[in-house]
Amino acid sequence: MQKCHLGLIGLAVMGSNLARNFASRGFNIVVFNRSRERTEEFIKKFGTVGPHPTLSFAKERGSIAAPPRQRRRQEEVSRFVAAYDYATFVKALKRPRKIMIMVKAGAAVDGVIADLLPYLEKGDIIIDGGNSFYRDTQRRYNELQVRGIQFVGCGVSGGEEGALKGPSLMPGGSSEAWKALKPYLEAIAAQDFSGQPCVTQIGTDGAGHYVKMVHNGIEYAVMQLIAEAYQVLSVGYKQTPAQISALFKKYNSGKLNSFLFEIASIVLAKKDETSPPVLPSAEGRKNRDPLLSKGEGRERFGVNGYLIDNILDRAGAKGTGAWTSADALERGMAIPSITEAVFARSISAAKDERVKLSKLYNQKIASKRMPIGKFQTLLEDALYVAMISCYAQGYELIRAAATAEGWKINLAEVSRIWEGGCIIRAKLLNVLHAAYQQNPPSEGGVGGVLAQTPHLFAIPGIIKLMKKCVPDLREFVSLSGASGISTPVFAASLFYFQDMTTAKLPANMIQGLRDFFGAHTYERLDKPGSFHTDWL
Amino acid sequence: MQKCHLGLIGLAVMGSNLARNFASRGFNIVVFNRSRERTEEFIKKFGTVGPHPTLSFAKERGSIAAPPRQRRRQEEVSRFVAAYDYATFVKALKRPRKIMIMVKAGAAVDGVIADLLPYLEKGDIIIDGGNSFYRDTQRRYNELQVRGIQFVGCGVSGGEEGALKGPSLMPGGSSEAWKALKPYLEAIAAQDFSGQPCVTQIGTDGAGHYVKMVHNGIEYAVMQLIAEAYQVLSVGYKQTPAQISALFKKYNSGKLNSFLFEIASIVLAKKDETSPPVLPSAEGRKNRDPLLSKGEGRERFGVNGYLIDNILDRAGAKGTGAWTSADALERGMAIPSITEAVFARSISAAKDERVKLSKLYNQKIASKRMPIGKFQTLLEDALYVAMISCYAQGYELIRAAATAEGWKINLAEVSRIWEGGCIIRAKLLNVLHAAYQQNPPSEGGVGGVLAQTPHLFAIPGIIKLMKKCVPDLREFVSLSGASGISTPVFAASLFYFQDMTTAKLPANMIQGLRDFFGAHTYERLDKPGSFHTDWL
Repeated sequence: MQKCHLGLIGLAVMGSNLARNFASRGFNIVVFNRSRERTEEFIKKFGTVGPHPTLSFAKERGSIAAPPRQRRRQEEVSRFVAAYDYATFVKALKRPRKIMIMVKAGAAVDGVIADLLPYLEKGDIIIDGGNSFYRDTQRRYNELQVRGIQFVGCGVSGGEEGALKGPSLMPGGSSEAWKALKPYLEAIAAQDFSGQPCVTQIGTDGAGHYVKMVHNGIEYAVMQLIAEAYQVLSVGYKQTPAQISALFKKYNSGKLNSFLFEIASIVLAKKDETSPPVLPSAEGRKNRDPLLSKGEGRERFGVNGYLIDNILDRAGAKGTGAWTSADALERGMAIPSITEAVFARSISAAKDERVKLSKLYNQKIASKRMPIGKFQTLLEDALYVAMISCYAQGYELIRAAATAEGWKINLAEVSRIWEGGCIIRAKLLNVLHAAYQQNPPSEGGVGGVLAQTPHLFAIPGIIKLMKKCVPDLREFVSLSGASGISTPVFAASLFYFQDMTTAKLPANMIQGLRDFFGAHTYERLDKPGSFHTDWL
Repeated sequence: MQKCHLGLIGLAVMGSNLARNFASRGFNIVVFNRSRERTEEFIKKFGTVGPHPTLSFAKERGSIAAPPRQRRRQEEVSRFVAAYDYATFVKALKRPRKIMIMVKAGAAVDGVIADLLPYLEKGDIIIDGGNSFYRDTQRRYNELQVRGIQFVGCGVSGGEEGALKGPSLMPGGSSEAWKALKPYLEAIAAQDFSGQPCVTQIGTDGAGHYVKMVHNGIEYAVMQLIAEAYQVLSVGYKQTPAQISALFKKYNSGKLNSFLFEIASIVLAKKDETSPPVLPSAEGRKNRDPLLSKGEGRERFGVNGYLIDNILDRAGAKGTGAWTSADALERGMAIPSITEAVFARSISAAKDERVKLSKLYNQKIASKRMPIGKFQTLLEDALYVAMISCYAQGYELIRAAATAEGWKINLAEVSRIWEGGCIIRAKLLNVLHAAYQQNPPSEGGVGGVLAQTPHLFAIPGIIKLMKKCVPDLREFVSLSGASGISTPVFAASLFYFQDMTTAKLPANMIQGLRDFFGAHTYERLDKPGSFHTDWL
């Protein structure tokens, strides 16, 4: 029997889609799943590999964020092999073995590694493609290095669709492992704006999962910006979902072009097929969600019958946003936009409390408004610079982590591989990619000294953009502040930009207070050293 | 030799001030320090116990936040005993022994406990009065319980002055330990607005240190509010430190009355005694801090010569604010004001980067302003409701933690013991104390079911306050949003309040997007269950 190129463990949706993606590129794949049934089902369904699924979605809509990829010739030898025990699984693989694990982050990953280890040999490569916490990845990398096994923590972004048709891949590991994996990962990855694969060696040990974590943090912030814009338009301007959908579609054809605006427009336009589009019957009224507040009925059973109006405003979270925030806190870095987005989800989850409290306050929305046309232009600029601020926070966090952890991370490359496949893919990333390429670290190029990479706000092209659009973000925050509609991520994004570009902040007041009550001392502007004052 | 009432280990400033406070209340104290010299120095300096130090600061200024305490009669028997080894130290104590540890949080606490253990007997009580992380306290509590030793993690707030003259004490431990410690802790504690001691049994194991941690989180937020107000006044309105000091003094005589406004006014009025009050000589110019940006020179060497103008705007932090934020993230709770305050310190610390970036942007401060008199009134209301929002976030976090950890915490009591002694003591706490007392948990009173305690925003007295003042906070955020001066904690406080009292938030947009790209499913308003849509 011919040996397989890769092995894949864990056939839930992400794992099975990745396996299909690999197979469609002409690789032979041996698959394994904890439960025999799922493996059998997989083989039954996909055992004969068809042509590569096209990126129909992106192609149909002519998305710049997800450029159509060239179809490669389907090799006829590609196929799946099923294994029902680790011995057979490992034996089916070419050496050095390349085994991708797609199981739930946490103990399950350690379990699979422990089960595999007896069968592996020096030089074999394990790839963890799950959403593992980077500290776990670092630990596993070190533990396996001692045994001569290469461990690669690989961030995979793009959701189910991305896994199948082309994800953005963020592998962290040794250069040796990268060299061995490169042809395989490049074959299945999405493509950037120049048609290059959205994958690069991120750095060693936990770097790949770290960058994926920050990707998700930025994703939280951008999604919340879209939600806040939606709220201002729907509550403040009484725009219908169809109107907002049209506006987002228009935005998506300009500088805001991105996967998230593209799908936000689609989500908003979706008609509700399961719910009555007219006022409910007496029976329907009786079965209403008791959490529903008075105002919601109208909206919910409006004549338009848009699905968005019937979705409960209680956001879930898988935790990577909170990880990003906690990590920033630990490093003393500021990522206010990302963290406000995480908190916004927490507050949304407290629906019962909110409905109860809302009845005690009956908050008014300000009626004074800017004309809608003017506001739509303002909002576009506000969104654009707020997004840049969110990216800047994420990039700065990566820069700080890379410096502390000894990772060589190239932010131009990170921007490039986020151009396609991943959830935050956007035209803006091409702007950032170009900006970083033109302003490489002052010492060394690719993999250069990250501490020398300029701050995103220091890059000439970005300065121009910010100077042009920040006044609109200020006006937007001013309007929303007065309106009664909350825009925490817009405000946090504005204030982060402003404070990072302000020489003199009011922290001298903080230091004076701290020295007063705790003798914590302060520094002076005019001379070095620590000082303490007897304030009374 | 007569046995001592209490033992105290660790004679740095907090420990030695607490020992002196205990002694001044008529207790005999045996003291121990790792280095013999410090113990000898302590005995030399304080061996003869004088009368209790008065709360001169609070009395002089007639502070409501720190009411003058009644002087108690100095007992003549009280004195210090020095011990230079643990055997002697423990032997000097009455049983059950009460030993307070005042050493650096972390490994040092474990070290002292390990050293003490061989000499202790069942029923003895160890009190950790340091700023320990509550998870460590929980661990120590459990480890010592097995050995029959009572462990009390006791939050101590009030800084050096508070430790000496009357701190706010937050002991967490068993009821048995609390009964034994009560007379001692009550004797040294500050007094609340009714003259009662600022100490209560907070809950078991880590509850005391947890509540202290949240206290510090609130402290971060309120200090940042003061700093932001200072920035708006000094940069936006070109007010001098003396003018701002006078305003804060006026605020301190009204509803904003609090220790932090009291000392902020003093800090602002302080003249710089070490720095030339006029323009510097050529030599002075040469020695200027290279980080100093162009605009700062004028301010720094202004004719007024206020110390605040020469304090470097780079804030330090001891980490308890970041702990609070990380804990909230872990619990899925929202504390945006506290976290924005932590991030504001991080951003301030990046002084070099800020100075560099500021030169690339040369940001403009808006010149359009509200008349100063009207603005000062607006600011007072904005500060007041923003502070209430900060407290609400902290209280909600305590409520969530207490429910999860099984702590019985009474928020009326927490408010009461924060009325005096601690850094965030304020007239407002008496308002919150009264509010919670009138709205006890619907099941049980003191130590009742915390999950049943109403949200701070649901208490009638608070509703009235918020309704009156929130419009001013909205206007303030609107003005600052347009001004170019950042007010992240004001904005976060407004948005937290608004969102917690808004029935319908835009999280349905988030859920739609998540279901689109990740099949994460969503809930509906009109029927229970999880739903997934094929969006294309």
